[in-house]
Amino acid sequence: MVPASVTEYLNSHRPQHLESLCDLLRIPSVANVHDQPDSCQKTASWLADYACKLGFQTEILPCEKGNPHDRPNVFAHYQAGRDKPTLLVYGHYDVQPPDPLELWRTPPFEPTVRDGRVFARGASDDKGQLLAHLLAIEAWIKATGSLPVNVKLFFEGEEEIGSPHLEPVMAANADRLACDAIVVSDSDWFAPNMPSLTYAVRGIAYFELTVKGPATDVHSGTYGGAIVNPVNALAAMIAAMHDAQGRVTIPGFYDDVLPLTADERAAWSRLPLDDAEFLRGLNVSSAAGGEKGIGLLERRWARPTLDCNGIFGGYTGPGQKTIIPAHATAKFSTRLVANQDPEKIAQGVRQFVAQHTPPGVQAEVRMITCARPVTLRTDSPEMRAARAAMAEVTGRDVTLVRCGGSLPITDLFQRILGRDVVLMGFGLPDDNLHAPNEKLDLEQFYMGVQISAAFLDKMGCRV
Amino acid sequence: MVPASVTEYLNSHRPQHLESLCDLLRIPSVANVHDQPDSCQKTASWLADYACKLGFQTEILPCEKGNPHDRPNVFAHYQAGRDKPTLLVYGHYDVQPPDPLELWRTPPFEPTVRDGRVFARGASDDKGQLLAHLLAIEAWIKATGSLPVNVKLFFEGEEEIGSPHLEPVMAANADRLACDAIVVSDSDWFAPNMPSLTYAVRGIAYFELTVKGPATDVHSGTYGGAIVNPVNALAAMIAAMHDAQGRVTIPGFYDDVLPLTADERAAWSRLPLDDAEFLRGLNVSSAAGGEKGIGLLERRWARPTLDCNGIFGGYTGPGQKTIIPAHATAKFSTRLVANQDPEKIAQGVRQFVAQHTPPGVQAEVRMITCARPVTLRTDSPEMRAARAAMAEVTGRDVTLVRCGGSLPITDLFQRILGRDVVLMGFGLPDDNLHAPNEKLDLEQFYMGVQISAAFLDKMGCRV
Repeated sequence: MVPASVTEYLNSHRPQHLESLCDLLRIPSVANVHDQPDSCQKTASWLADYACKLGFQTEILPCEKGNPHDRPNVFAHYQAGRDKPTLLVYGHYDVQPPDPLELWRTPPFEPTVRDGRVFARGASDDKGQLLAHLLAIEAWIKATGSLPVNVKLFFEGEEEIGSPHLEPVMAANADRLACDAIVVSDSDWFAPNMPSLTYAVRGIAYFELTVKGPATDVHSGTYGGAIVNPVNALAAMIAAMHDAQGRVTIPGFYDDVLPLTADERAAWSRLPLDDAEFLRGLNVSSAAGGEKGIGLLERRWARPTLDCNGIFGGYTGPGQKTIIPAHATAKFSTRLVANQDPEKIAQGVRQFVAQHTPPGVQAEVRMITCARPVTLRTDSPEMRAARAAMAEVTGRDVTLVRCGGSLPITDLFQRILGRDVVLMGFGLPDDNLHAPNEKLDLEQFYMGVQISAAFLDKMGCRV
Repeated sequence: MVPASVTEYLNSHRPQHLESLCDLLRIPSVANVHDQPDSCQKTASWLADYACKLGFQTEILPCEKGNPHDRPNVFAHYQAGRDKPTLLVYGHYDVQPPDPLELWRTPPFEPTVRDGRVFARGASDDKGQLLAHLLAIEAWIKATGSLPVNVKLFFEGEEEIGSPHLEPVMAANADRLACDAIVVSDSDWFAPNMPSLTYAVRGIAYFELTVKGPATDVHSGTYGGAIVNPVNALAAMIAAMHDAQGRVTIPGFYDDVLPLTADERAAWSRLPLDDAEFLRGLNVSSAAGGEKGIGLLERRWARPTLDCNGIFGGYTGPGQKTIIPAHATAKFSTRLVANQDPEKIAQGVRQFVAQHTPPGVQAEVRMITCARPVTLRTDSPEMRAARAAMAEVTGRDVTLVRCGGSLPITDLFQRILGRDVVLMGFGLPDDNLHAPNEKLDLEQFYMGVQISAAFLDKMGCRV
């Protein structure tokens, strides 16, 4: 059990915790293009200072030394005792771009509390969830003078752009990252009041496809009907990526997909699903996306998918411009499930593009980022500790869930440290991740801090 | 014959003519969005001043009174004699947007002479061609004290955005526009050394199609495979607009298309066509656009087509953003031939969109502008005058051509004044209309001025 002094500390410091959360959310640490390029460095410093004040040995490791736009990693270490196990806490402080700005009720980097929720970019993904661990650690140290386990902190600033520098940094610092267990809070519960642990995440392979036609934009009257239009050609290629059954037509796409186990199918059938409510939340009238004849949850958790994330070409201003555009580009990504391999998928995509490029235009496709799908053991000591901590704090059974999103870090930890992570998130499904009006329920936030504190306790007891 | 004094005046004033052309091209009169919103008013004033100094009774008629972004019409009248016929000269002083700016060798609104050509947005379309008439008129007045015909000038500033205010202005000013003949120079020759008169232009119906999905952008991992992606749905709709034969699938699209006459087919077969060179000029390797089994020239001049002019949706910045976009939009336009009716085509488009909208998304389509296709009589007195003027100045036979582009004004003059126009342009096919590095050959420009002067003479002689 968590000592009463720690619990009391947590309960009496909620206003300060909210204040710290808002401070962290105010720094516009967009990993992608942004008008305040030093925001990521500021956020890294904020986190390093916080850890330092708690007694952590702290270091900021740049990804690209000397780059003023650098998004450095924060590494910190608290040695509680040689005989104690070591827990590594990973989180990412970078956030998705906030656009379209006009759809935010309050500005994305001016955290605002409404109806018991704090609205800001990064509130749930992942600053709020990352901070919960720091606050739990702070409570243990302030209330008891130490921690029940040794703790290493590892915070990155490039997660939302596919962590382009992470693998070499981790490989070079494998000793520094060595630990007995890893916890990541960057996921959500199946529903309010259903504390959940995630045991599988989809992989991703993200592509950019450009179709090039005439050397410059040309007059659509003079040349219309003569030459292949790059926008039309791109649209035809995208359309051909799915068949009439909603299946992806990339060669070999489904070759390595593992079917659901009977156990999973049975467990999932017991989940309280309400497809209609799910769709209402999105203001969508039909779940017609994806493969026909497969249930909504299976499509989101256990089937691979392909979605356009953006498209642009030609004239996009108001009114009209009568051109055949010189080129057009689509960004699209596949979500992958075990045992699909992103490199093999990329080969299929390149083959598909070559086969579907009409004469008279050139097509170029490149993979921007990728991460393999990951399935985690559910019976490890740290998974049992997480389950016990969640149950203790919430008074409820813990549900094992999958996640439709991708957490490339889970793949990296498996490959580089040979360790599974524990995905102990506490967001909710309606947190508007990657979307306008991202929020975090304060109740979930305070519960997340308590769960982290309990998890430190369980890990210290080597459950 | 044009009096020697007029010809001498023209020959000796070439430097001044080039200077006037550059002055006119320097004003960035983009009809569409632009950062100098009063440029169209400045251009209208420039033209009105020019006409006024020549003795024209001149008036600037606003399209939208009091709108600081107004793109007014210029109307001017020179009475040479009650017994003389009246010629109306129409031109448009507005220009296409100059983007993409980075592809211009010299800035679009800093006219630059290279290799006997002046490069600037609007050089050929249509400021240079419009100005040629003013300069010919000036030469007649300065050299002879008057004009061989009464002349009315009518210059508009909204042609490139589909002339949204023109029809009511023309209808309200039909008396003012009353005339015996109309000349428009806003077209090109079939090739250098092949002076051409255009007897048919394609119509246009320009549409904007928006597909809306979830209320906001949503996470492509969490929701990928669950809901219909608006970008993918839009791409599928665009792809479905053509069949495997390159034919447009909009219901009823070809119903009213008139086939080529035997005479036209015979005349066109004698034109010096070089498809390979045509494609090389565009840096395109294949003429695979449009309907299979139909020749390149016929596809461009006599067949209706459908092209996307722009597309946008979701994330379009560098790198990646993993969203299912809330909406996506395409701009597309059909080029129409006799006897297609834009309103009937719009009905077909609406029907197509309704039939091809998948469940779970909404599609909205609206027609932005339209103009009917126009075929002109080739044996009218003014057409004969134009033919004679061109032949006299160039010493060559005149070729009758069609035009793949649209000149909605030809339709309006037919409907409102009951008159055909003469399309007596002098651009060249490689003028880069609507594209970067638009240019006008100075030789063509000076010849255009001479042709206009000769045309005034022939019209005065009532050829």
